Amino acid sequence: MGQNDQRHRNKNKIPMVVIKRLPLYHRYLSLLASRDINRISSAELAAKVGITPSQLRQDLSWFGSFGQQGYGYRVQELLGEISKIIGIDQAVPVVLVGAGHLGKAIANYQNFERKGFVIKAIFDNNPGLIGLVVNGLKIRNITGLKHYIQQEKIEMGIITVPAEVAQQITDEMVAAGIKGILNFAPISLNVPSDVTVEHVHIGDSLMVLKYMINHSKIKEEE
Amino acid sequence: MGQNDQRHRNKNKIPMVVIKRLPLYHRYLSLLASRDINRISSAELAAKVGITPSQLRQDLSWFGSFGQQGYGYRVQELLGEISKIIGIDQAVPVVLVGAGHLGKAIANYQNFERKGFVIKAIFDNNPGLIGLVVNGLKIRNITGLKHYIQQEKIEMGIITVPAEVAQQITDEMVAAGIKGILNFAPISLNVPSDVTVEHVHIGDSLMVLKYMINHSKIKEEE
Repeated sequence: MGQNDQRHRNKNKIPMVVIKRLPLYHRYLSLLASRDINRISSAELAAKVGITPSQLRQDLSWFGSFGQQGYGYRVQELLGEISKIIGIDQAVPVVLVGAGHLGKAIANYQNFERKGFVIKAIFDNNPGLIGLVVNGLKIRNITGLKHYIQQEKIEMGIITVPAEVAQQITDEMVAAGIKGILNFAPISLNVPSDVTVEHVHIGDSLMVLKYMINHSKIKEEE
Repeated sequence: MGQNDQRHRNKNKIPMVVIKRLPLYHRYLSLLASRDINRISSAELAAKVGITPSQLRQDLSWFGSFGQQGYGYRVQELLGEISKIIGIDQAVPVVLVGAGHLGKAIANYQNFERKGFVIKAIFDNNPGLIGLVVNGLKIRNITGLKHYIQQEKIEMGIITVPAEVAQQITDEMVAAGIKGILNFAPISLNVPSDVTVEHVHIGDSLMVLKYMINHSKIKEEE
């Protein structure tokens, strides 16, 4: 811990761009930890994340004071702090709704557990899928979704259902107590202001790629 | 077309944040077009994208001049221009490598075609998958990947293979002429400077969600 404590800056004003960098810090620190590297300078960590050392110090100052002048950061310690800030210092239970190809891919994706998220249950409305086992979890009937979320006090859900039913599923999840939804269905979801939706837009990433390809050609031609 | 032409601003300096908004413009304009709405004010379009009208005008000024003072934008016309800027005014062929659950989900995802991308071929190394048909495409043997990319002059690829083989597949794709890769494998890929990689980090989105959930609780408790 350093000498300054800026913990009292107004946390409600933390810019979204800073929050979106927390996973990057987590990723690089995890990588360092897995390689038994104990210490990293702010210059090195900043370079990994693609920002300046002063931006890095400013980012972290929103959450407390970390690191030491001339020493840098203790990898395990900062990783632990970042995990606490994100809220993944304890495993976070998640429900998955939709057991089609994408749902199965997500259920099988080992990486979530390393990131602190555990898929606790999978739901679908397809009688041909209900009862099948994916990655050790039996696919449950969607009719039990609300009860399960309430009983297990789950706050996060992943939606991989078709667009036509995504809003209805969302409404059920929110009514049962879900506070955050990762949405793969290609529609915008309406939720109350205390519920957060992150939308995964694969098509958007393809568009950015395509633009970058054309753009690098223009550069070459100029 | 408006009165100013700023087409000569240095296109190499277009901020990434502006480029990343192009898909948002595309999405909302497509939605309006599908509802037969012909015209939109800059205030309305900006609100949809979550920026100010002046930011919207600034964004678009990087690419030319669009809209008319007091009239707004013709939806179809601006949608056409944005499509051209992104490079999806003609269908963009894409190869998909990896026919596991995620690969199959992507191959079945109808939304890509509406966005201008067409998956032309799917490759895998699993003898149990090669020859099977997904969404009308026969899964091909990975040994034919390089030849196919060269022959069909494909520039974009999607990787859904395990992390252990992702770099090797990337090297092959790049050697064959691929210029843009959408990577779902949970590792960083090394590519030459004229190749762009967009990484889909589903775990990152979950972390941001989790942070937002905790944060909104803190607000309530304060």
